[in-house]
Amino acid sequence: MLGVIFAAQISVMLAPRPLPAKSLPVPATVSPSLQTVIASPLDAAIEAIAQVPSSLAEWKTTIAAYDEANRQRLTALRQQFPVSVEPEIIAGVNTYRLTPTEIAPENQQRLLVHFHGGGYALAGGELGIGEGILAAYHGQISVISVDYRQAPDYPFPAGLEDAIAVWQEVIQTYQPSNVGLFGTSAGGGLVLATVLKLQELALPLPAAIAPLSPWTDLTKTSDSLWVNECVDRTAISYDGIVAGMAKLYAGEEDLKNPFISPVYGNFSGFPPTLLVSGTRDLFLSDTARLQRQLRRSGVTVELQLFEGLSHAEFLYEFATPESAAVFEEVRLFFARYLGQ
Amino acid sequence: MLGVIFAAQISVMLAPRPLPAKSLPVPATVSPSLQTVIASPLDAAIEAIAQVPSSLAEWKTTIAAYDEANRQRLTALRQQFPVSVEPEIIAGVNTYRLTPTEIAPENQQRLLVHFHGGGYALAGGELGIGEGILAAYHGQISVISVDYRQAPDYPFPAGLEDAIAVWQEVIQTYQPSNVGLFGTSAGGGLVLATVLKLQELALPLPAAIAPLSPWTDLTKTSDSLWVNECVDRTAISYDGIVAGMAKLYAGEEDLKNPFISPVYGNFSGFPPTLLVSGTRDLFLSDTARLQRQLRRSGVTVELQLFEGLSHAEFLYEFATPESAAVFEEVRLFFARYLGQ
Repeated sequence: MLGVIFAAQISVMLAPRPLPAKSLPVPATVSPSLQTVIASPLDAAIEAIAQVPSSLAEWKTTIAAYDEANRQRLTALRQQFPVSVEPEIIAGVNTYRLTPTEIAPENQQRLLVHFHGGGYALAGGELGIGEGILAAYHGQISVISVDYRQAPDYPFPAGLEDAIAVWQEVIQTYQPSNVGLFGTSAGGGLVLATVLKLQELALPLPAAIAPLSPWTDLTKTSDSLWVNECVDRTAISYDGIVAGMAKLYAGEEDLKNPFISPVYGNFSGFPPTLLVSGTRDLFLSDTARLQRQLRRSGVTVELQLFEGLSHAEFLYEFATPESAAVFEEVRLFFARYLGQ
Repeated sequence: MLGVIFAAQISVMLAPRPLPAKSLPVPATVSPSLQTVIASPLDAAIEAIAQVPSSLAEWKTTIAAYDEANRQRLTALRQQFPVSVEPEIIAGVNTYRLTPTEIAPENQQRLLVHFHGGGYALAGGELGIGEGILAAYHGQISVISVDYRQAPDYPFPAGLEDAIAVWQEVIQTYQPSNVGLFGTSAGGGLVLATVLKLQELALPLPAAIAPLSPWTDLTKTSDSLWVNECVDRTAISYDGIVAGMAKLYAGEEDLKNPFISPVYGNFSGFPPTLLVSGTRDLFLSDTARLQRQLRRSGVTVELQLFEGLSHAEFLYEFATPESAAVFEEVRLFFARYLGQ
């Protein structure tokens, strides 16, 4: 009897809090170019993101639609940031070697390996190289962007296997201490999963990693998935396509497998890590929780938090000063931690 | 005519975004003790915080009510964290010397100077020492907690004058390179204003500073004041008492005076800075914007972001593992940057 009352009390105590509707002004604290973007209507995107494809054919149509938007964005990005792009097959995996017009003297022997974002399903092929171009351009450094295999055709662990295969080949040519890994969103998650797997395999680790706005938990657990729902204008909501892509990637595997949701991993011995997020990021808590886990393991972590930025928005809005500031932090971070 | 159309377009473009009502679950990602606190009803506090006193007498009643809650909290805190407390007048300013049972060998010649929070009006007298006790206890280091003069009787710049006076006296005994400044909320703002003023006066600077969840902008500008309104369960909302205390402190001065709202200051030459905030912090953007300003000036900044924490909640909920983790970061930070 007492137990019943106690259980009832707990259930009342942990009741959710009702939050009234509110009106969210365009922040005066971000750049004018970002203000314009934030002010654009979101209704169509909210509607689109809620539609979860129910068949493989529907998934392919949805992925194609997102990829078409990515294609237009990439064209504009490449016009603004001239970086040479050469396809290169490494250990049987498609990659792109991205070479800026000028490589800084201290970066001659250095390399960044890039894993693109897109929920482990979007932005495959050449469409994933945008972030790599930004890092190469702003950092005056060579980048290899990995076109790892993706869902739905190749769910977990295909992408991770590709990442490991490329790494093993790359360190035949480059000193691991001169190489960094980076990526945003799912790409950031894959960076973390790759290091966890390299540790398991007792392979050399990169000198430093930069998982940006990383997707560290594919379950609906992080607090910001509620707090920043519809505050974030790029990822918008976990429910819908995001949750769908999580399942599409994991297949039969547990979503809490640390190689899928790396926040559940063990980070002892991880290299110095740069985290970037925005105050409006739907996945802000994925970053905060990861930082705690890394710090508990004694890892050197640098977190750069950007006012008003939504999830991975520094990639979509590559012409904003915020985007340039993110990649300046990426440059400074790898300059500090990579060998030469 | 074209101008009119253009202006109308801009005004439409920058329209606020309507956010629907939502239900905010208690996060599974924070400690059980913090979950219990987050789950407690907020209605009475929301109502209380919205009432702005309209006379000096009403302000004093309101301050006394908040101070009574602080008094009960301080009693519990002192029972849990045994630290000796000795009143000490320094340069005519009331302070408290806080000495832990054991001072770590590397901290024998070190000192932390603490400015308490409370919107420049609350937690005066002994009530402000709680955070100083936590830092002394967790860090095994001596702390001087400054009972600077506050509004409404002593608005700006009385508190800042007291801070500078104490600093000048303290560095007669301690090497500035062995001394750090820290404080939360208004105390964090006062830390920043103090360093800005020390620079203006060409006085020696502290070796490192830790403004935690700092109140860096007393105007209603930071994006999180909207995003985290009623998500944050301690500060809750800018409108109401918080806005009232901002005006009470500034008096006739412009709220954007950098000695009042330090985010508008120039941070060149600032010492290494530790920032702490939480994903639910009403003032999260005050921290994000400050970090950008510090980084633009080339300052070394460490940001620790805590999942699910509201404004200054690590002080109120001093028995949680989150609070211990915050003060462990404070300890590690000062251990790294203070001389011995």
